Amino acid sequence: MLVYLDCDPGIDDALALGYLLAHPDVELALIGSVSGNTDAATAAANARDLLELFGHPEIPVAVGRTDFLSHPYSGGAPHVHGNNGIGGVQLPGGAAPFAPGSAAEELVGLARSRPGELHVLAIGPLTNLAVALEIDPELASLVADVVVMGGAALAPGNVTAAAEANIHNDPEAAAAVFAAGWDVTLVPLDATMFQRFEQGDLDALLAGGPRAAALGRMLETYYAFYTQHFGRPSSALHDPLAAAVLTGEAVVSRASRVPVVVDTGDGPGRGQTIAELRGRYRPVAPEHPEGVRVVFDIADPFAPQLLARLLAL
Amino acid sequence: MLVYLDCDPGIDDALALGYLLAHPDVELALIGSVSGNTDAATAAANARDLLELFGHPEIPVAVGRTDFLSHPYSGGAPHVHGNNGIGGVQLPGGAAPFAPGSAAEELVGLARSRPGELHVLAIGPLTNLAVALEIDPELASLVADVVVMGGAALAPGNVTAAAEANIHNDPEAAAAVFAAGWDVTLVPLDATMFQRFEQGDLDALLAGGPRAAALGRMLETYYAFYTQHFGRPSSALHDPLAAAVLTGEAVVSRASRVPVVVDTGDGPGRGQTIAELRGRYRPVAPEHPEGVRVVFDIADPFAPQLLARLLAL
Repeated sequence: MLVYLDCDPGIDDALALGYLLAHPDVELALIGSVSGNTDAATAAANARDLLELFGHPEIPVAVGRTDFLSHPYSGGAPHVHGNNGIGGVQLPGGAAPFAPGSAAEELVGLARSRPGELHVLAIGPLTNLAVALEIDPELASLVADVVVMGGAALAPGNVTAAAEANIHNDPEAAAAVFAAGWDVTLVPLDATMFQRFEQGDLDALLAGGPRAAALGRMLETYYAFYTQHFGRPSSALHDPLAAAVLTGEAVVSRASRVPVVVDTGDGPGRGQTIAELRGRYRPVAPEHPEGVRVVFDIADPFAPQLLARLLAL
Repeated sequence: MLVYLDCDPGIDDALALGYLLAHPDVELALIGSVSGNTDAATAAANARDLLELFGHPEIPVAVGRTDFLSHPYSGGAPHVHGNNGIGGVQLPGGAAPFAPGSAAEELVGLARSRPGELHVLAIGPLTNLAVALEIDPELASLVADVVVMGGAALAPGNVTAAAEANIHNDPEAAAAVFAAGWDVTLVPLDATMFQRFEQGDLDALLAGGPRAAALGRMLETYYAFYTQHFGRPSSALHDPLAAAVLTGEAVVSRASRVPVVVDTGDGPGRGQTIAELRGRYRPVAPEHPEGVRVVFDIADPFAPQLLARLLAL
């Protein structure tokens, strides 16, 4: 499958990137960077360095928007992802030049060159996708589908009580993406908070080859953050889970296709995803074919599959 | 226990009133009416007629605010509660005069006359409570505790995807009540949607004495609404469950005391309750002694207890 990856590496972004490169069915055609865990320029450099590490310097990286649609970027999440976005790990720098166009422009060009073939995987704020939809109003019909890591349907948020970080960073962009009429699958905290790497997974990565070990060293920072939340060394697998929902390796066992709106106001719910889930009290929930497919659970724990892929990098 | 009941009967309000009158530990000192399921004047008349039906015409009823803090009352929920608020059932009218003061004024007077003793049970919009807090800023310290039926913490809403009707009707009032510093227990849809009367309970009421049978006739309207949602003749026990949480007959088995804010904006989340539940990923959720106690579940199904009380009316 032909894939465009929009990301803000980001430690779990690095895992997702490694996962995609290790998956035999994925043709990763382009990476766009976006601000979120870190700024878009740093995210692009991290993506390039990760591609170098993983032996794929030929995959182009396009730098995306630094600022969000309604407000400027203001500093990312160094307490989660370290000061450089990848846990303070210093990678040998990749030398490949960035793509000439912005992430949004390159995405549009790629979608136009391979109409109907492109799968979009967005694991950061949705700024680039919204800009691309503005650049080319036909984009939605040119893309096969869109998988987004983000939001919280019935689960609590993470950056606020109601909102998840990717959507909260750029609610206006998310609202545009959900309303664009393409086939969107949302992989929210409801699903990702329950797919985790534990201490044994980290140990296995650190004992693996240099690529896996580098990911392990990044994860040590991520674990330090999540240990406060989960009470033990471990981490949620937000971004790689979304990647595996795209490939189909994570088999979705519970999902609802429903209207999803984003709170773009300035109240306590800003940036939350409000999914129309009132139908779940019915014996058979009503169908909303135009809605967003919200993933609630997958059939089997994803960590073993992810670990195996990353050890084979 | 000395109880002030603030209500908008309302079919499940009628069940809650019957339950309170049938409970030997409850001294129902005053009823205040509020707009919600129907307008405040109709709600007051219904309360008076229900008191007559149940043999307690001596309990005073005070008429509450018709309009909400930020906007006028605009028609209630006749599709749920019938055109007269109690399923179209015509009761022999009670003749007792209403209390001289407004519901808020009478609540303040009662709390002042029995400081520390009064338990407030609010099963409609929180307008009267907010007005009472304005009238007497010391009210919060005069009341023993407050139990509210309303909101949706992690469950979907009912009137919107995010909001429950009582809170949505007057979000500004709810925000004031949650912030007043008294001991508030919230019984939201997360709990009430799963406590239900089924066909057998309705049949038993209809076959009971005249008081139970009148409640059964009201419930037929309520069942007609809920059958669309639950797929079978049944009804959620929103208001009576809150009454039983107050009495302690419904034993709370799962609750979190957390900060709760109300979305008072004009976006898609208006009127929702946003509970700070991010701590639930931790092995031990942090304590918020100043928070609202949000009830998620009770130990045993409540329907049999409620049915027994109502049949004994």
